[in-house]
Amino acid sequence: MARAESAKIDDVVNENIDIEAAFADRLGAVAHETEALLDRLLAPEPVEGERARPARLLEAMRYTSLGGGKRLRPFLAVESAALFGVARQSALMAGAALECVHCYSLAHDDLPAMDNDDLRRGRPTAHKAFDEATAILAGDGLLTFAFDILARPETHADAEVRLKLVSALARAAGLGGMVGGQMLDLAAEGRFEAAPAKLGETDVKTLQAMKTGALLRFGCQAGAILGKATPSQWTALDRYGAALGEAFQIADDLLDLEGDPATVGKATGKDAAAHKATLVSVLGPEAARRRLDSLVAEAQAALDGFGRDADVLKAAARFVATRSA
Amino acid sequence: MARAESAKIDDVVNENIDIEAAFADRLGAVAHETEALLDRLLAPEPVEGERARPARLLEAMRYTSLGGGKRLRPFLAVESAALFGVARQSALMAGAALECVHCYSLAHDDLPAMDNDDLRRGRPTAHKAFDEATAILAGDGLLTFAFDILARPETHADAEVRLKLVSALARAAGLGGMVGGQMLDLAAEGRFEAAPAKLGETDVKTLQAMKTGALLRFGCQAGAILGKATPSQWTALDRYGAALGEAFQIADDLLDLEGDPATVGKATGKDAAAHKATLVSVLGPEAARRRLDSLVAEAQAALDGFGRDADVLKAAARFVATRSA
Repeated sequence: MARAESAKIDDVVNENIDIEAAFADRLGAVAHETEALLDRLLAPEPVEGERARPARLLEAMRYTSLGGGKRLRPFLAVESAALFGVARQSALMAGAALECVHCYSLAHDDLPAMDNDDLRRGRPTAHKAFDEATAILAGDGLLTFAFDILARPETHADAEVRLKLVSALARAAGLGGMVGGQMLDLAAEGRFEAAPAKLGETDVKTLQAMKTGALLRFGCQAGAILGKATPSQWTALDRYGAALGEAFQIADDLLDLEGDPATVGKATGKDAAAHKATLVSVLGPEAARRRLDSLVAEAQAALDGFGRDADVLKAAARFVATRSA
Repeated sequence: MARAESAKIDDVVNENIDIEAAFADRLGAVAHETEALLDRLLAPEPVEGERARPARLLEAMRYTSLGGGKRLRPFLAVESAALFGVARQSALMAGAALECVHCYSLAHDDLPAMDNDDLRRGRPTAHKAFDEATAILAGDGLLTFAFDILARPETHADAEVRLKLVSALARAAGLGGMVGGQMLDLAAEGRFEAAPAKLGETDVKTLQAMKTGALLRFGCQAGAILGKATPSQWTALDRYGAALGEAFQIADDLLDLEGDPATVGKATGKDAAAHKATLVSVLGPEAARRRLDSLVAEAQAALDGFGRDADVLKAAARFVATRSA
């Protein structure tokens, strides 16, 4: 190999290493800022319109939302918004609201009546650390709080923008989004019938697009809403978010099949035991892995129009596919 | 008694009968319209931003929110808004959102891990009619849906107004409002300690102002927000709402003590059995009844500035205090 060519390859390799490092830095920064913001928002002092913040409920809401998680969803909101030069605090507020919804859903999904999990992010789940009633209420409180956060002037000066966030989050999280997806998931396990349903590829994709995809996608939508994206920018970010969401779930299902519980931070092998319908079970691990690669490529290609500004979001797509926890 | 005086008294009596009849008509009309609106909003077809509406979840959300209830909270929103000549559809949308929050809270409060009730409005509770997981998800779905409803242009043309509704409902329903009140209630029962806490009058009032008062009060606030009330109009309606909320809870506690389960539509005598802290248990039934009368007078006096337009809301305060179910 000629010296010039070798140097060029070195440059590309080094640049990729730089981008990976930048991604890790930025993910860590958003996690840190999100933690600090939620800590401030969930302070003991009541705000206008509140009578008091009962200590046990506040503690359970803090336990459920603070002290863990990669904060991937807030990261998507912050980095999508950064493409448009949105004030960071706006995106962090939207990200904090999104994280409240994500954390509430984990607390409720972990309940004995749902997935009955004892461990989450390496810690006891909310109903284990407190009790079932408190875990239910902490979830209810966090879901409600998400809309409180979005409605605050601190999120954006323009009421129309805040309202679009409220609407998009409600659609992503509710009946036709995350909550609906969890219902489809329980149904697919055979909870309400004699036997687990035999879901095909399309059914599994719908289920997962709702259960986990919708919130990840909202992260990108939040950036586009805050940034007042053009229709083509909106479509690009939404394609990225949808592909990333699907990739995230396949990687999650592969981790459940092959991951080490100590690294993953929760029990593994539960999908197979519960006959969960996943793309890994429908396609097999090898085909699922190929699909994962093509989804990462699809997510990255969707952002080409943003140029180098989107490098960190592109790195996030790789990260989602290759993470070990 | 002179004939003229007697005729005057007859007039007052007849007028009161007329107002009671008008109140009953208007309460019935709002109940009917709220039912029709929720039925339409909870249709099987997904709306923009939703992927699908899973049948079992939709069915459980409809079961939990349709087919029962006096719809007192929507009534407060509609009649408060009517003081300002607000379009009826706006107030009905706000009322429907409020009712979604109310109904979700009933479904979650009835869960085995909470109050463990089998009967509600004379029908099996959601977790009895379906199962625990479905009842939890139906509640989560309805809470989320409330904010979806408020964010729709159909609720009000002005985004600023819709956003104020979102904010006020989130505060009324969340950590510092209803959910916080339910937590205080469970704590007062001694769920998390060796023995029930001995709550004084102030503590009980705070608990009840949060647990049931906040949502009733939001009904009146919604009317004031939609009607762009002046500060003094806001204060008047808010005072009315706060007094009505307290009266509602005392009447509820008296019903639990003395009511007939067949009429009330749910189990009675549960407060005493659970050592629930109520104003009836703190003050005794006689003093509680006197307090109830003075709260009705207070609620009615707060609305004097609205003149005869407020007659139906004043009748609602009497109704709340004297209802038998």
